[in-house]
Amino acid sequence: MLLLQLRAEVLEANLELVRKGLVLYTFGNVSGVSREQGLIVIKPSGVPYDTMKPEHLVVTDMEGKIVEGDLRPSSDLATHLALYRAFPEIGGVAHSHSEYATAWAQARRPIPCFGTTHADYYHGSVPVTDPMADEEITGDYEMNTGHAIVRTLHKTGAAHVPGILVANHGPFAWGASAMKAAESAAILEYIARIACFTLSINGSSAAIGQALHDKHFLRKHGANSYYGQKKD
Amino acid sequence: MLLLQLRAEVLEANLELVRKGLVLYTFGNVSGVSREQGLIVIKPSGVPYDTMKPEHLVVTDMEGKIVEGDLRPSSDLATHLALYRAFPEIGGVAHSHSEYATAWAQARRPIPCFGTTHADYYHGSVPVTDPMADEEITGDYEMNTGHAIVRTLHKTGAAHVPGILVANHGPFAWGASAMKAAESAAILEYIARIACFTLSINGSSAAIGQALHDKHFLRKHGANSYYGQKKD
Amino acid sequence: MLLLQLRAEVLEANLELVRKGLVLYTFGNVSGVSREQGLIVIKPSGVPYDTMKPEHLVVTDMEGKIVEGDLRPSSDLATHLALYRAFPEIGGVAHSHSEYATAWAQARRPIPCFGTTHADYYHGSVPVTDPMADEEITGDYEMNTGHAIVRTLHKTGAAHVPGILVANHGPFAWGASAMKAAESAAILEYIARIACFTLSINGSSAAIGQALHDKHFLRKHGANSYYGQKKD
Amino acid sequence: MLLLQLRAEVLEANLELVRKGLVLYTFGNVSGVSREQGLIVIKPSGVPYDTMKPEHLVVTDMEGKIVEGDLRPSSDLATHLALYRAFPEIGGVAHSHSEYATAWAQARRPIPCFGTTHADYYHGSVPVTDPMADEEITGDYEMNTGHAIVRTLHKTGAAHVPGILVANHGPFAWGASAMKAAESAAILEYIARIACFTLSINGSSAAIGQALHDKHFLRKHGANSYYGQKKD
Repeated sequence: MLLLQLRAEVLEANLELVRKGLVLYTFGNVSGVSREQGLIVIKPSGVPYDTMKPEHLVVTDMEGKIVEGDLRPSSDLATHLALYRAFPEIGGVAHSHSEYATAWAQARRPIPCFGTTHADYYHGSVPVTDPMADEEITGDYEMNTGHAIVRTLHKTGAAHVPGILVANHGPFAWGASAMKAAESAAILEYIARIACFTLSINGSSAAIGQALHDKHFLRKHGANSYYGQKKD
Repeated sequence: MLLLQLRAEVLEANLELVRKGLVLYTFGNVSGVSREQGLIVIKPSGVPYDTMKPEHLVVTDMEGKIVEGDLRPSSDLATHLALYRAFPEIGGVAHSHSEYATAWAQARRPIPCFGTTHADYYHGSVPVTDPMADEEITGDYEMNTGHAIVRTLHKTGAAHVPGILVANHGPFAWGASAMKAAESAAILEYIARIACFTLSINGSSAAIGQALHDKHFLRKHGANSYYGQKKD
Repeated sequence: MLLLQLRAEVLEANLELVRKGLVLYTFGNVSGVSREQGLIVIKPSGVPYDTMKPEHLVVTDMEGKIVEGDLRPSSDLATHLALYRAFPEIGGVAHSHSEYATAWAQARRPIPCFGTTHADYYHGSVPVTDPMADEEITGDYEMNTGHAIVRTLHKTGAAHVPGILVANHGPFAWGASAMKAAESAAILEYIARIACFTLSINGSSAAIGQALHDKHFLRKHGANSYYGQKKD
Repeated sequence: MLLLQLRAEVLEANLELVRKGLVLYTFGNVSGVSREQGLIVIKPSGVPYDTMKPEHLVVTDMEGKIVEGDLRPSSDLATHLALYRAFPEIGGVAHSHSEYATAWAQARRPIPCFGTTHADYYHGSVPVTDPMADEEITGDYEMNTGHAIVRTLHKTGAAHVPGILVANHGPFAWGASAMKAAESAAILEYIARIACFTLSINGSSAAIGQALHDKHFLRKHGANSYYGQKKD
C-alpha cells in the first residue's frame, strides 16, 4: 500500500475533527500531500469516522486521478487540489461544517479580529469568499470553490491566514501537515465562536488596533517569534 | 416475539437520539415500519432510554391497535401512523424536542436555507406547520398533528424534505429506516443550530441562490448524485 | 444513622444535578423530607459532589435544628424548609444556578409558555419572584427567599408548577421526592434554554394558545392523563 | 528538583483548565508561587496539556529569571509576575481564553453583577482594563499587561475581585493557591456565560441592588461568612 505513514497521519487528522466536535456523521474531510511523490491522501466520501481505517483512504495524483483505493474520494477533492496547487507551502487541508464558522460563512461576514486569540493565528480578518457565479456552480463546482478561495486570498492580500470561509458553505483550513490543517479548523471554529458571542454582548464591537494585532501575530510567527519552544 | 430484527433496529434508533443529545429523560420517540407485515414498532411511553430493551417496544398495526407488547405505546403513535400512511416510501419516523429545532418550531419560523449543509438535505426551507385549530387540539390531537404535517408538506410542495417543524411543539423527521429517521432528526437539529447562529451574526442573512441550492441537493440525491459510495 | 434510605436518595438526587450539568463545584443543593418523622435530609454546605457520601448529609427537623450530622447544612436550608411547610404534597426541593434558568432569573422575566415542552410540565409561565425588599435581605434572608417564592405562587395562582425563578438569584424546583425535584430542576433548565433560543430566533415570539397548553398539561397530569404507563 | 509539591499542584491546576473546558490545545496557563523561597512555578510555553509532566514546568525567581527547567516558560510569565508583586496575598494566577469571558473582554464591557452567582465571588462588576497604549504594546508587552491589570484594579477600587478581563485579550484570575486560581477562572467563565445569556433574554437587564450584592458577598467572605464549613 502506498504512503503508509501519510495514510496514518491523514486518518488521525480526520479523527481530530471528530474529537474537537467539528463534524456530524460523515461531514467534513481532511487530506495530506506528499510533495515529493506528487500524491495526496484524502478521506473517502460518505464513510463514517468510527469505522474508518487507513486502507479506506484514497490516494490520488495532483490532478485528482485515483492512484490507489477502492472507494470514491471525498466529493470536495477538487477544492483540496486547487489549494495544494496554489500554495506550495501547505501540507494538509481540512474542511468541515463546524457550527460557528459555518454560521459566519452563512451570514457572509468576514470575522473581524476582535482579540488576541484571533490575532495569534490570523493577520487580519478571517476572509469570506464572494458568492460564486451560477456558471461556476453548475460547472466544475468543487474546483471552482478552490478558485474562489484562491481569488479571495489574493484580493484581500491575506498572505498569513490558515483558513477561510466559503460563502454559504463553510470553512476550509490548512497547515504544514494534515494534523496542522485539522488544528487550524478547530482554532477557526473557536475564533468564530467567541466572535459570535462578542457581537451578542456588544453589537458594535470593534476590531483591535494594529499594534496589538501585530504584536500577537508576530509573537507566534516569523523570525522574532517567542511563543512555544525553540526549534533547532 | 414478533419482528425481532425491527425491534433491535428501532431500539438502536431510539438510542441514537440519546447519543446525539436530542432528548432529556423520556422525551422523544422513534418508530419503524414493516410494510410487508403492515406492522410498526414504536418506543413505549415514558420509559427511560437507559433501561429500554427490545421487548419493551410496542408492536401495532397500521391503525394503532396493539398487536404485541405489555406497555403503552408512545403517546405520539397516531402522528407516526399518519406519516406512514401518507408517505409509502418512508420506513421510520423520529420525534424529539431537540433544542434548536424546537426553538424554531416555537418561534413559528420556517428555517431558511442559509447554506449548503441545509441544501444537502432539504430542497427548500424546513417547513413549519400552521398552528392547529382548537377543535383539532381537543379532538384526536396526535392524529391531527400528523394531518397538519401532511397538509403543510402538500401546501408547500415540499416533496424532498426529511423533516418538518410542528408549530409550538417540535420536529418530526423521517427516512428509509428507523435509524435513517433518527439521523434525519440529528441533522435537522444541526441545521437549526447553525441557522440560529447565522441570524445571531447577521439578522438579515438571506437564503442561498437556487443554483447552489440545486447543486448541493442534487449532489446527494437523485440519478446524478455523486456524494458517498456507489450503491450497486 | 437516621434515615439511611432517604440519605441515599438525597445523595443520588444531588448527583443528578451534576450528571445533568446544572452545577459547578459546590453550587446547588437538593433535600428530601420524611413527613412521618418530621425530618429533612439536605446537602452539606460547600462540600464537593465527587467526594460526598451519605454520612456527610445533614438531618434537621422542620425548623432547621440539626438532629444528626457533623457538617453545616446548605446555607439555603431555610428556603427549603419554607417550601416544605407551605406545600405539604412535596417530598423534595432542588436548587441550582443552572445557566439558562439563572439567566431568566437575572433578566427578571417569567418564561412564557412557547411550546409543548413547557406545557407538559407548567400550567402557565414559569413565574419569577419580585425582587426582595432590603429588609428581607438583611433580615432572615434564606427564610424570606422561601416566603417570596410562596407569595409569588399564591399571587400568580400558579398551582401547578414544579419550579420557580427567584429574581436575580436562580431556580428552585420541587417534586414528590428528592429525585423528582432534581428532575424538575433539569427540565426547568431545558425549558429555559429553548425559550432563550426561541427569543433569539424571533424576538416577538408569542405564548401558545390555551387549548394546546391545556391539552399537553392534561395529557401528563390529572385524572385523564395518558402519557407514560398506567399506575395501578 | 525544586519545589516538588508546588510543581504537582501547579500541574494539577493547569489540568483543571482542561477539565473545565477553558482551553483548546496549548491555550492558557497557570502558575503558583512560593513566597518563602521567592520562586514561582509556571506552565511551559506551547506544550500540550495531555503530555505535560511536573518536570516540564519552569521555575523562575520573582523577576522571571529561570532557576530550573529546560523549557521556555509561558510567554505570559511577566503578567503573572506583575500580579504576584502587586498582590502579596495571592498564591496562584490563571490565564485562559475561555469562551465567554474572552467574549466580554473582546466586547470591552465590564460584566455587570446581574445576580447572586456573581455576587458570591465579586464585590462589584468584573472589571475590564482600558485598551493598552501602542507604546505599552510594542514595549515590554506582557509586563505592561500586568501593569494595566493592577492600574485598573486600583482605579475601580476593586479590592475584592478574584479576576479581571484584559481588553481584547481574555481573563486573568487568581486565588490563594494555583488550584484556587484555576477555580476562579472556571467561575469567571460561568459568570460571563450567564451574563451573556441574561443580556440575550433582556437587553436592558440591570445590576442587582446593593443589599443583595452585599448579602451574598458577605455570606461567603469576611468575618461573618456562613457559607461552607467552619475553618478552625
